Order: sequence, then structure tokens, then C-alpha cells
Amino acid sequence: MTASRYDVLGIGNAIVDVIARAEDDFLIKQGMQKGGMALIDEARASAIYEAMGPATESSGGSAANTIVGVASFGGHAAFVGKVRDDELGKTFAHDIRAARVAFTTPANSDGPSTARCYIMVTPDGERTMNTYLGAAQDLRPGDIDETQIGSAAVVYLEGYLWDPPQAKEAFVKAATIAHKAGRRVALTLSDAFCVGRYRGEFLDLIRKGTVDIVFANEHELLSLYETADFDAAVKELRGEAKLAVVTRSEKGCVVVTRDGVEAVQAMPIDKVVDVTGAGDLFAAGFLVGLARGKDHRTAARLGALAAAEVIQHIGARPAVSLKALAAENGLPL
Amino acid sequence: MTASRYDVLGIGNAIVDVIARAEDDFLIKQGMQKGGMALIDEARASAIYEAMGPATESSGGSAANTIVGVASFGGHAAFVGKVRDDELGKTFAHDIRAARVAFTTPANSDGPSTARCYIMVTPDGERTMNTYLGAAQDLRPGDIDETQIGSAAVVYLEGYLWDPPQAKEAFVKAATIAHKAGRRVALTLSDAFCVGRYRGEFLDLIRKGTVDIVFANEHELLSLYETADFDAAVKELRGEAKLAVVTRSEKGCVVVTRDGVEAVQAMPIDKVVDVTGAGDLFAAGFLVGLARGKDHRTAARLGALAAAEVIQHIGARPAVSLKALAAENGLPL
Repeated sequence: MTASRYDVLGIGNAIVDVIARAEDDFLIKQGMQKGGMALIDEARASAIYEAMGPATESSGGSAANTIVGVASFGGHAAFVGKVRDDELGKTFAHDIRAARVAFTTPANSDGPSTARCYIMVTPDGERTMNTYLGAAQDLRPGDIDETQIGSAAVVYLEGYLWDPPQAKEAFVKAATIAHKAGRRVALTLSDAFCVGRYRGEFLDLIRKGTVDIVFANEHELLSLYETADFDAAVKELRGEAKLAVVTRSEKGCVVVTRDGVEAVQAMPIDKVVDVTGAGDLFAAGFLVGLARGKDHRTAARLGALAAAEVIQHIGARPAVSLKALAAENGLPL
Repeated sequence: MTASRYDVLGIGNAIVDVIARAEDDFLIKQGMQKGGMALIDEARASAIYEAMGPATESSGGSAANTIVGVASFGGHAAFVGKVRDDELGKTFAHDIRAARVAFTTPANSDGPSTARCYIMVTPDGERTMNTYLGAAQDLRPGDIDETQIGSAAVVYLEGYLWDPPQAKEAFVKAATIAHKAGRRVALTLSDAFCVGRYRGEFLDLIRKGTVDIVFANEHELLSLYETADFDAAVKELRGEAKLAVVTRSEKGCVVVTRDGVEAVQAMPIDKVVDVTGAGDLFAAGFLVGLARGKDHRTAARLGALAAAEVIQHIGARPAVSLKALAAENGLPL
């Protein structure tokens, strides 16, 4: 195995977020499931945009947010995902490259427009997402570059990739290449509804060892094992995954290995403004910690630090240098 | 004179802001004048965007920000400005209408793209702006609707409109209509460099009574009268303007009338995050106060409140309801 060129390479849906504040009433009127991510078509996207308040646009996408977080920690990072060559596609590409992430997937020159996620942030800081996948659906095995994948210490995949059918094949191809090159493969379960859609396939990925590291929040874990009993679910996970981290919002997280279960506290903060990106940024900190040879507890603390930063402002990507923040908090990288 | 349908109608450049954090070094390397607004062409816009960091997009434009502020205070508001029918033009139109502002200026179906302002926010909260005017330059007298202009208690115009030549004619047409209908006309000097470009014309507008209310910050006032002596400049202004407000950042503002000069304090705040929109939102509070029959001191306090809100977050438009904020601060509207 040669030295890795990237600490983390992420594969995910390339999405621009359209973020507005909204009252709970708005979610009810629009039939939106609070805290969830719904897939929508272009007509519904137009109707939601028409109804929603003044918005700001910023690049998003779950794995893309994670990868930008890795770069903000000073890690070497790359992203694979599909945009159209339209204005939003240019915005996505600019933002991720400006964050010093390698992004070379060619943009589509025709077909659906760049993916958009309409995010309503309610006064409690919760976010409710509606995603029009557009061009992101067109990620396919041909977009997976064997040399690039093989040169990343960890390949990180988002569960949301299970929605577009060809992306799933790209995912499996990437995992196979990574393992052949002696690298590790990480998966985030993405969202409890996503787990509901692909439970069997996600369990297969874990059981067959297609993924080595699993990220889940409490809801996703409970959905995966179809139980309301957290400890029972953790026990099942422990028997199946090599390494997993279950995040529990303000209760911190647990790192799950064959050797045991270790709890790590969340970072205390003043006020939650917008939880968008919390899980994505946790994964960024944890993965950069692993890639730099830190122990699981330190990696989890880096994750907690990044998650705390991103939920204190609107938007799903860090507003400050996470490398500097880590150093200030006694976690130098 | 019939009852007014709008408290304030604003005419200005319709612009989408592209905002990124930047270090002072970046400004120097790019030859940017810190705190200023430079007009740029499309090639320079591309070069700046290429060089700048990850950005967020949100609707801006000086008078447009003011008008959205008026609506946030619960005022009836309208905006006149020119976009192209491209993605950013749709974003601008969505955001201003979603803020409950009447916006009926037809979008161009060809010609240059919607205006963009590339804003660098340095760690001290100062903003440095580079504006590509694009479609905004095409605002012309034909876009001024006599009935609509005549139905606004105050017509508010931005000095930046002096840059596109046809917009200037639209400006004068609107002022003439407003006065014929017995309404008041307000002007913001916009920026000290803008005053440098159009000093003679701005003085003419004030001296001839084309404008009734003048907004300026300290730098703009000093530039207008080509002096470094604040008191001398205020004295000159007092002799020429019917009503003027000079804002002085953390030192508050002075309201200048033929009767005298009254100082009003700024609102104390914890930390300046991004000064973009401070002057625009001050004008919003002051104008809504005037339109609702408040005295000058109360109007200035409403202005200070709105300015304090907008400088505590990234972006040039209010993140909360200014009407609610005013009520919480003992300034019900």
C-alpha cells in the first residue's frame, strides 16, 4: 500500500442549499415532516420556493459538507459528485474548490439542473429538508477514478447515494477499489427515512464488510434495527460493525467497537441556530482524527468540536478555520 | 394629496451579493480599497470570484436592502430595479417578494446578466465590495410608473444610481412625479467614492430641492464638502438640506435640520460580524419612523436598532422581524 494522497475522499450528491427561516406552521401547511429530508420533483421544488421566505444560497450536500470540514481541519480532501454546467453548478464547484478540496467530476452539459435542497430552519434550530436531486442523480460508475479512489486513506460515502440508482453502483465500485488498495470505507446512514428506504441494503453493506466505519445518529440507528431500545440497537451494531459512531445531539456520541462502547461528551454551546450539517461536520472531525492517527476518543472530540461550530450559525459548512479552532481547544492536528 | 399606498418606495440597483470571508492580505493582493465599492466588468468579476473563498449568495442592493428593512418593520414597501430573467434574477425577485415588498419592474429577457456584488468581509467586520452592474444598468425612465411613485409617502433613491446613465434619468423622473404628488424624496449618498464621482450633481440635487431628505455617513459628508472638519461639513449641510441624517458608526448619528443638530446614540452591541447593510438598514428604520409620524429622535433610534441587528450577522438584510425587535426595545410601530 502506497502513502495516501488524500486523508478523506467523499462521494455524494452535489447540492446547493437554499435556506430560509420558517415557523412550524409553515411546515404543517406544506405537509413537511419536521427534521426529515424529502425527495421532491422539479414542480414541487418550484412550489416550495414560491411559498418560502427570503433565502440565502450556499453549497451543501452531506458528504460534500464533511469533505469541506476535513479540508478546514487542514486535511487533504477530494470530492466526487455530479452537477450541471449551470449557474448553481458553477457555484458548487467554486465553493468546494475554494475550500481547497480536489473536485474533478465533469459537469453535465445537458439534462436536469444542479441539485437544490430547500431547507427550512425553525426557531428551535431544527432543519427540514426538501431535495430536488436533478443532475446529482446522474453520478455513475464511469465517474469513479480508480487511481484517485485508491489514493485516499478513507473513502466516505453518504447513504443518500442510495436514492439515485446509478450512484449506488458508483458507490460499490468505489468501495471495491478502496479495499483492493488497502484503504478503509466509511458510510453515513444519512437520515432515518433514508434508512427506512434501504434498511436491508445498508445492513448488507455492514455485514459483508463493504463498509468498515459506520456513522449514524440515534434515530438512524433505531430505524436500522427497528427498535426503540437504544442499548439493544448499540449491542446489535457492536456485533456487526468494525467501527461505528452513534451521535446523540447534546448527549454527545458513543464510539462502538468490538472491544466496547465508549461515550464522548458533546461540546457545550450557548444557542443552537441551525442544526444543518451537524452530523456531516461530526464525521469530518472524526475522520480527520482517524486519518491523522488519533485515538477514537480524540477523533470523537474533534467531531464534537466541528459539529458545535456549525450549529451556531446558519449554513452547513464551517464559518471559521477548524484547524485553528481545534488548536485553541487543545486538540492540535 | 390622496392617502399613500406605500410608506416607502425605493429605486436602486437590483443586485445579488456573493459574500466571502477574507483576510486583509487578500484585499491588498487584489488591489481592493478596503471599505469601498468598486465597479467592475464581467472579466474582473470572474477573476475575483475565481480567487475568493467559499461564498454564500443572498439578495442585496443598497436601496433594496432598505426597502426589505421597511417591510420587516411592518411598513408598506415597493422596489423598482432591473434584473435579467436568469437564475440570479429569479433569486432576487423571489427574495424581495417573499419579504412582502411589491416588485413589478419587468426583467430583461436579453443583454447582460443580473448584477452581482462580490463582498469580502474581513475579520474586523468591515466589508469591501466589487459590483458588476450587468442588467441593473438598464433601469430607464420607462420603468418608472407614475401611479405607483405617486402613491408612496417617501420615494427613496440610492446615489449608486448615478453610475448607470439611464438610471439617473429614471431617478429624476421619479423625483418629479413624487413632488407633483406632494410626496417626499430621500437620497442616500451611498459611498464616499460615489460622492467623489458625482459631487457636483449631488450638491445640485440638494440645493435645488430635488431631494428633501439626505442620508450620509461621516466619510460621504466629508467627501461632499471636501473637508476633514466634521462640524464645518454639518454646518454646510444644515444650510442646504431640509432634513439630513449623518451616521457615524458606533458614535451614533446626528439629525440635521434648519432648526438645529440633534445627536442620537448608536445601540451598543457585542461584536460586529459584518457591517454590510448598516447604512441601508439605518435608513429603513428612520424612514419607517417618519412615515408613521414619529419624531426625528424616535425615527433615528429605529434606524440605530435596525443597523445594530444587521451588523451582528453575515448578510445585508435583517435575520429577524424588525417590527418585533422594535416592540421589544420599547419602540412600537
